[in-house]
Amino acid sequence: MHIVAIGGSDAGISAALRAREVDPDAEVTVVVADAYPNFSICGIPYYVSGEVTHWRNLAHRTHGDLEAAGMALRLDTVARKIDVAGRLLHLTGPDGTDQDPVPYDQLVIGTGAVPVRPPIAGLDGLGPADGVHLLHSMDDTFAVMRTLAEAGTGSAVIVGAGYVGLEMAEGLSARGLAVTQLERLPEVLPTVDGELGALVRAQLESHGVTVHTGTDVKAIARADAGAPERLRVDAVTAGGEPVTVHAGLVLVVTGVRPETGLAASAGADLGARGAIHVDKAMRTGLPGVYAAGDCVITHHRLLGETYLPLGTTAHKQGRVAGENAAGGHRQFAGSLGTQVVKVFDQAAARTGLRDHEAAAAGFDPVTVAFEADDHKAYYPGSHKIAMRFTGDRATGRLLGVQLFGHKNAEVAKRIDIAATAIYHGMSVDEVSDLDLSYTPPLGSPWEAVQMGAQAWVRHQSARQTR
Amino acid sequence: MHIVAIGGSDAGISAALRAREVDPDAEVTVVVADAYPNFSICGIPYYVSGEVTHWRNLAHRTHGDLEAAGMALRLDTVARKIDVAGRLLHLTGPDGTDQDPVPYDQLVIGTGAVPVRPPIAGLDGLGPADGVHLLHSMDDTFAVMRTLAEAGTGSAVIVGAGYVGLEMAEGLSARGLAVTQLERLPEVLPTVDGELGALVRAQLESHGVTVHTGTDVKAIARADAGAPERLRVDAVTAGGEPVTVHAGLVLVVTGVRPETGLAASAGADLGARGAIHVDKAMRTGLPGVYAAGDCVITHHRLLGETYLPLGTTAHKQGRVAGENAAGGHRQFAGSLGTQVVKVFDQAAARTGLRDHEAAAAGFDPVTVAFEADDHKAYYPGSHKIAMRFTGDRATGRLLGVQLFGHKNAEVAKRIDIAATAIYHGMSVDEVSDLDLSYTPPLGSPWEAVQMGAQAWVRHQSARQTR
Repeated sequence: MHIVAIGGSDAGISAALRAREVDPDAEVTVVVADAYPNFSICGIPYYVSGEVTHWRNLAHRTHGDLEAAGMALRLDTVARKIDVAGRLLHLTGPDGTDQDPVPYDQLVIGTGAVPVRPPIAGLDGLGPADGVHLLHSMDDTFAVMRTLAEAGTGSAVIVGAGYVGLEMAEGLSARGLAVTQLERLPEVLPTVDGELGALVRAQLESHGVTVHTGTDVKAIARADAGAPERLRVDAVTAGGEPVTVHAGLVLVVTGVRPETGLAASAGADLGARGAIHVDKAMRTGLPGVYAAGDCVITHHRLLGETYLPLGTTAHKQGRVAGENAAGGHRQFAGSLGTQVVKVFDQAAARTGLRDHEAAAAGFDPVTVAFEADDHKAYYPGSHKIAMRFTGDRATGRLLGVQLFGHKNAEVAKRIDIAATAIYHGMSVDEVSDLDLSYTPPLGSPWEAVQMGAQAWVRHQSARQTR
Repeated sequence: MHIVAIGGSDAGISAALRAREVDPDAEVTVVVADAYPNFSICGIPYYVSGEVTHWRNLAHRTHGDLEAAGMALRLDTVARKIDVAGRLLHLTGPDGTDQDPVPYDQLVIGTGAVPVRPPIAGLDGLGPADGVHLLHSMDDTFAVMRTLAEAGTGSAVIVGAGYVGLEMAEGLSARGLAVTQLERLPEVLPTVDGELGALVRAQLESHGVTVHTGTDVKAIARADAGAPERLRVDAVTAGGEPVTVHAGLVLVVTGVRPETGLAASAGADLGARGAIHVDKAMRTGLPGVYAAGDCVITHHRLLGETYLPLGTTAHKQGRVAGENAAGGHRQFAGSLGTQVVKVFDQAAARTGLRDHEAAAAGFDPVTVAFEADDHKAYYPGSHKIAMRFTGDRATGRLLGVQLFGHKNAEVAKRIDIAATAIYHGMSVDEVSDLDLSYTPPLGSPWEAVQMGAQAWVRHQSARQTR
């Protein structure tokens, strides 16, 4: 049995590890397009910031760890073509030449995603050598670091204020750069409600980041001679006002799209947002071909099929694909879009659906805001957590939770409590039945998530009484 | 409609608050035996330590807050007798005289628990004036503070190393006292496995606490003239060796027993550990009489009826009793014994059953230890979490989790994720299906609890393969 995984990131490596766990006799090969298998892409901002002192530390596992787990790695090797009928994988090797096709019994495609190139004039003609960067891979990271090492890179423009954009704003600020963040949508971190996005924005601004929201970047160009920095970014606000920022580095981080060329040319069906269509067993429909990670559609427990690329999901999907490739029968249980981001001293987290997402999915949502202490306020060091609870009016079902609070306010694990509740289809009211822990330095007799749930229930009762 | 709650602590106040929420027209009276309604008894160690600067800060709500919520408080008033047939409550007032009986429609008994007095020679003849204390109420707390204020109280013996004993060891150490902790059982914090208890003990010792486990206290006496401190504690080790410690303060914190006299004399049935028997609606069986909190049996989701007094449970039971007293139909969903304690810089937490508890309850438990980082180790400030997972061999059901780690390692909220999983009867394997949050500074792509669950599953697979 020879199992081949294409992709050295979360999905491919998880598939390979799990295949070896399930079938220790399986031969497992991982084809990695670059030289960095199993690197933590999510950790890149912390290498840029200097908090991670060496890029090698970003590896979840070393090359040696991976080989010890029983997989063969083919680095700097690109999967060019899948011969589905012949169960052969055609590769281009490190030297750029075609290699002998690799026979496989089961194949897992984990080609991931690539950064979106927004339609900005001048973007295509500029690159890392000019100080203009996309950011997705280790090679992209090294290119950014080279720009940062150049004399005179004292300021940066970040186009986009999603997760990566915010983390890079922090990382570049930590390196002493003056950072300007430009976001097309009305608020930063548009994956949470604007009320929480505004708190994130305040956090950015309090750390010296200049934020322009509702601001669409139109052009990036080399600045005129005599300009304060070498690059010029021209944008326009929603009100039509021009915004011009000069910077030594421009980072364009406006999201990703699934990398599906290999799968599509092999005949795989595509689904939501053009991602590879898979069933919950991660089967593509092509015989012997699984796919997982940022290149595939996401089965969402509340939305059905969507596209929601996250590292956590890629790990789970990869594990399912690897187990099934090795003869197992596991199903991906579905995403809830659970995610958290740290922005300087604060963290924002969400799970499930926001109000408008729930409405679009056919629910009748009600969203209630509440604030609670992370632990008893009489014990030193307590922080407020801003919460937003979304539930279904008719059934009372908990649909989504959003949290914002200090990085030490356990926001990430609190969202996980909510995620576990939503996973099980709990009503908002039933959340109060959960037996959760308490000691004054670390919580309250009613966990903050329960207090938020009770606020939602009170709000509903008041409406019904009225 | 007049609802009367007896008891100013978690259960009584929760019942009163909830009754007013459910029926804003209800007249609600709370009978409080002392002058401290709705005080956080769990916060006492942090007042003793000095971290809570004024004892009034320990109030969850002020007297004014409670009255604003619509309840009448009768302080320093003891419920002497319940006339069940006449629905009258007989009270003794602040001046020690009988008051006019109070008619009620629905009654909630929340008389709580009282400290156990272990059979130690000399204990009955010594009291706060001698420096010998039990600790359960605000009055007890003030007595301890008076002893601490006396010249020459430079050392303390704590008899018992459960939650309160450990917290008081920290609190008294923080005040500069030399603390000796004596525990009859083989390890401190006997509510978790010895492997984790040993880590708690190391934490105590690293902060200067002298710990004697397997050591049974036999006598407390006034020390002889010329002794280094005014009190002498004599104990004996499991091996029969005598241990003698002198101290200026002796604190006996060896657990509690339910305070049931009032209910029993009214004819209420008693159940596990002599606690008041209630059904899941918190009904005692006496018409119009509910009971909740530390005075009642605990419905446990895995054990059935037991006695497991916890503040969190008292809040939930009180809320159920209050809702039902006001005409509702809520059921207590059951405890999992979820709890956490901070000991200096570390925290220990548990939910569900330990191996021997599960075996006694008829399961076929397997317990597996694992260790994981609280967040990606490449990001600064990561801590190891020691974990113990207990699952059922035959069904794979998750039965219990125990965690130990740094106080900032989010151990409390991680045990809550596990508690939510156990609440829903998840298998250990299914824990990996939960969609939990990740960012490198706050977690890992597989949450630590999922890594522990996977270790359990691997352990089981290895046994089956062997």
